[in-house]
Amino acid sequence: MVQALDVPGLLDRARRLCTPVLREAVNRLAPPMDRVARYHFGWTDAEGNPTEGDGGKAVRPALAVLSALAAGVPAEHGVPGGVAVELVHNFSLLHDDLMDGDETRRHRATVWTVFGPAQAILVGDALFALGNEVLLDAVAAGLTTQQDAGRAVQRLTLATRKLIDGQAQDLSFEHRDRVTVEECLEMEGNKTGALLAASASVGAVLAGIDDKQADALERYGYHLGLAFQAVDDLLGIWGETEVTGKPNFGDLRQRKKSLPVAAALAAGGPASDRLAELLADPENRGHEDEEQLAVRAALIEEAGGRAWTADEARRQHATALAALDEVAMPAEVRAQFAALAEFVVVRER
Amino acid sequence: MVQALDVPGLLDRARRLCTPVLREAVNRLAPPMDRVARYHFGWTDAEGNPTEGDGGKAVRPALAVLSALAAGVPAEHGVPGGVAVELVHNFSLLHDDLMDGDETRRHRATVWTVFGPAQAILVGDALFALGNEVLLDAVAAGLTTQQDAGRAVQRLTLATRKLIDGQAQDLSFEHRDRVTVEECLEMEGNKTGALLAASASVGAVLAGIDDKQADALERYGYHLGLAFQAVDDLLGIWGETEVTGKPNFGDLRQRKKSLPVAAALAAGGPASDRLAELLADPENRGHEDEEQLAVRAALIEEAGGRAWTADEARRQHATALAALDEVAMPAEVRAQFAALAEFVVVRER
Repeated sequence: MVQALDVPGLLDRARRLCTPVLREAVNRLAPPMDRVARYHFGWTDAEGNPTEGDGGKAVRPALAVLSALAAGVPAEHGVPGGVAVELVHNFSLLHDDLMDGDETRRHRATVWTVFGPAQAILVGDALFALGNEVLLDAVAAGLTTQQDAGRAVQRLTLATRKLIDGQAQDLSFEHRDRVTVEECLEMEGNKTGALLAASASVGAVLAGIDDKQADALERYGYHLGLAFQAVDDLLGIWGETEVTGKPNFGDLRQRKKSLPVAAALAAGGPASDRLAELLADPENRGHEDEEQLAVRAALIEEAGGRAWTADEARRQHATALAALDEVAMPAEVRAQFAALAEFVVVRER
Repeated sequence: MVQALDVPGLLDRARRLCTPVLREAVNRLAPPMDRVARYHFGWTDAEGNPTEGDGGKAVRPALAVLSALAAGVPAEHGVPGGVAVELVHNFSLLHDDLMDGDETRRHRATVWTVFGPAQAILVGDALFALGNEVLLDAVAAGLTTQQDAGRAVQRLTLATRKLIDGQAQDLSFEHRDRVTVEECLEMEGNKTGALLAASASVGAVLAGIDDKQADALERYGYHLGLAFQAVDDLLGIWGETEVTGKPNFGDLRQRKKSLPVAAALAAGGPASDRLAELLADPENRGHEDEEQLAVRAALIEEAGGRAWTADEARRQHATALAALDEVAMPAEVRAQFAALAEFVVVRER
């Protein structure tokens, strides 16, 4: 049981199982897209020399592998699902970084800054297509049936569309002074929840689990995503910077419409009203100094936005765990799902 | 039989059948992507007011509908396939226009120039996902089986990956002085042939045709694409401009590595050598005047590049028609496939 709750071990197993298949998929890309993709995954530097990059935490592949185990098949049967969700996740990172103008990701220069926008678009498109390809390849490999591969593609496709909807909503929020809590939750559910939902069900779907239980696994992943995002939104304001140990106020600097802000604005009362005034004020927009940001953070806290978001993370976490109860699975797999949820939600930065 | 060979009628039927389903799919997109997509398809202007646009020739939907008829099912059963290939085609147009910096398409401003690069990326992604969604929706609509929808998604996914490979190759050619005839054919086969191949088989695949006959229908579409592209390459140099009636030299002005150029360079001899010299000369690059372009066109013709490409178009057209012989289908459907091939290959501009 101690071993079963070893989350780094869970993530490592998923990475070890999925990375070779992921690399093989990337090798299929026409040059120079293969080289660009290897750079993006952290396997090589910009010149193509191998590096020691880890390519991210592998939470999605780990969920996919667990969902295969939940359905009673070996971990290996979840691998096409794990690789597919990782490909779709990285398709969205490549395109989002370009759309958002983000210049670094995982402490490295983003693809569009190194290889240009066209390669970021193209390689993103190619990874999206590869995701479906890998799922459908699992039929010929004898890991699933055509029927179940089709079901998995359908669920992944719907998740991908939600992912795209979420990015569209996120971009549209930039042009607005405020968004409601409901709009914020919908956007975050689309942008983060939908693909975690597909990750937590895909291995089981490939193994032929019924739709009702697959839906329950999706709910686990979806609410886990919302819990993760609530924590992320808290850390985006009050998370400590590595060097100074002070709150980083990063999301406030970027005027991000995150949950604590939306909740504070919805609360009403003097602190809420004052916050709304400050956010609507065109003066200093984008040039707020540290002190002004600290005032806003204090107003959000005073209006209850911080406490509400922390409660929301707990609620979403509890909803995720409750969904697991609707699925028949071995006790140690259930414990691993719970441990992974704990890992995703309890973070320092 | 006269009615069967009425190509505008064929295209019109496909457009009439597919457009409502295409519009319904676009309606699913989150704002503002739905509006952007409607503009792209020519249904509205930039402000969202309805327009009389036709949204393209509908060759791909027409092929999809024909392939359903070839498999002995009603035209309606080919509609999800026709809509899916049209969605994937338009995904590639949205992204290619942005990557290539093209500012007009079908005599209208391209999406990225009107709504910005982020919307062109996002809506392209969304149309890509919708393509698979529409195929898989056909199961619930009773138009195909989960098994055959999975086969159709697999073939469309592979075609889409080739499409992306082709665009990657096309972009990489821009940085080179010359490409071989084989490289040029491979790029054009990927960029144009692969999706026409999927279009010509998808309706039949949804109807459960066996893989051998589906492959033959794909070969018809693939070689039809190469024939189309050879003609397009000829028109790109010697096609007459609408106003003056003179050769437009457009592809020479853009230094496009098209088939006539590749064939002329491969031919050897004095004209071929002189052409190679001119193309390698960095002087005046991109600023050639009409007379210099006319000299190049004459050298390509003298080296045999024009005649070779015209022969190649005929060869590819013949190969396409020969592939049809491997598929059992009603005589009038075969005649319609042949008429559509004639229509695609015989063009004035």
